[in-house]
Amino acid sequence: MAIDPSKVGLEGKPVEREWNGRQCLLYALGVGAGLDELRFSTNKNQQVLPTFAVIIGGGGVPLAEIGRFNPVMLVHGEQAIELLAPLPTDGRVQSRGRIAGIYDKGTGAVIETESESRNAETGELLLRTRSQVFLRGEGGFGGERGPSGPKNVPPERAPDHQVTYATREDQALLYRLSGDFNPLHSDPDFAARAGFPKPILHGLCTYGFTGRALLHTLCGSDPARFRSMEGRFAKPVFPGQSLTIQMWVDGETAIFQTVNDEGDVVLSQGRCTFAS
Amino acid sequence: MAIDPSKVGLEGKPVEREWNGRQCLLYALGVGAGLDELRFSTNKNQQVLPTFAVIIGGGGVPLAEIGRFNPVMLVHGEQAIELLAPLPTDGRVQSRGRIAGIYDKGTGAVIETESESRNAETGELLLRTRSQVFLRGEGGFGGERGPSGPKNVPPERAPDHQVTYATREDQALLYRLSGDFNPLHSDPDFAARAGFPKPILHGLCTYGFTGRALLHTLCGSDPARFRSMEGRFAKPVFPGQSLTIQMWVDGETAIFQTVNDEGDVVLSQGRCTFAS
Repeated sequence: MAIDPSKVGLEGKPVEREWNGRQCLLYALGVGAGLDELRFSTNKNQQVLPTFAVIIGGGGVPLAEIGRFNPVMLVHGEQAIELLAPLPTDGRVQSRGRIAGIYDKGTGAVIETESESRNAETGELLLRTRSQVFLRGEGGFGGERGPSGPKNVPPERAPDHQVTYATREDQALLYRLSGDFNPLHSDPDFAARAGFPKPILHGLCTYGFTGRALLHTLCGSDPARFRSMEGRFAKPVFPGQSLTIQMWVDGETAIFQTVNDEGDVVLSQGRCTFAS
Repeated sequence: MAIDPSKVGLEGKPVEREWNGRQCLLYALGVGAGLDELRFSTNKNQQVLPTFAVIIGGGGVPLAEIGRFNPVMLVHGEQAIELLAPLPTDGRVQSRGRIAGIYDKGTGAVIETESESRNAETGELLLRTRSQVFLRGEGGFGGERGPSGPKNVPPERAPDHQVTYATREDQALLYRLSGDFNPLHSDPDFAARAGFPKPILHGLCTYGFTGRALLHTLCGSDPARFRSMEGRFAKPVFPGQSLTIQMWVDGETAIFQTVNDEGDVVLSQGRCTFAS
């Protein structure tokens, strides 16, 4: 087995990333912002969607150091973001990351990583990210099994809020221009070899649609009120499916999940915090 | 009057532009290429739409030297492109431009410009462009009236080919990311001040949709067979309207026009040449 569980706690080299307003617009269009959200989809009084944090954050994680694995077998499991300030339209961050956990699930390995990103000029902490990836076929190395059982379980009542967004048949072709060119999301032949009837939507695209619903419903569309978001990728989404984001609010926290038009939960165990 | 007709023939300083495959993809999506045109909308065996010539070409034209005018009063009148070779996905061109004509139409001035673009490394001629812009309110300077009367008139028969494409309500929000951030195409307030009920589509976006129809219908989707395209912007298009491209073929030339869903000709007097 190639995964080395002693790498927990390992820190990576800091990396810098910079971005500009045009990339924020491209991202916003990629996650479905349009004519109803001109502050996010155009450069007039432009603001940045909180989930753009997944594009600029997450750097500096030494994932290649945990051992040898086949990147084709990597599946994105969970994604969390925490924003300390609204994201600027143009900026440069320095990110530091670490391996936060390595778990042996038998059929595969779960690698949890954390990263924090600071304004590269002022040192101000801008955002934190936490991710879990599942490496299929890499289990059995004798590591801890790690936490199990669902978290952020919705209460036993109808959602307090519910928003439905359409995705487009070619949604992934646009979203990928924000940087994830994995052919699983664009090449029908590649998708077929991976066992899918057609290319699937990026999990982080579903995440961005979901973040828009949370922003507009819970934060009055004000990114300064958006604090954090976490969720688990439960099922592939096909471009063209609609996404319904269901929210249960308790004070400044909401449990949420995203459901496709067949009623399947595609983003589960969601939790969002915000300023009321 | 501020327009100086003696500037005809004036050449500008050469300029360089470079581009990459991602910009070609963004442009392709902006003019409606999607799941049916993966060679243009994704980077697998990627090819470049011929009308991308309007993004990388046209440089070096000394438009600011013809006299003082209000840029808000500038309307794109005609656009022609000529391709000497298929456009590469990544490249750098050096372009030289000149003022080819200045005409006094009474109510305004027509400025015709030409530019040619060469591979900046090899010097190979890649493309030529020709544009006419109309400067509203700048006529009466005593210049020549210039050529008049329609050209490229369709024959008196039903079109030989006809293709209809939908545009999206937010088409202009995506197209503008290819570089034309004029708020006339995105800002409802700005569009209202310009006398429009809502933002209008970029003329060059209509041009790109039209070019796709010509490419797929006349050239078997092969950019190497696409030689030239010219047309006149006859009427504003609103995002969300459908565009029907009508073609009349005679050998290796086609007369074409583009009609919106109300039957109005929006791109007129079109001519395309291609290799059969």
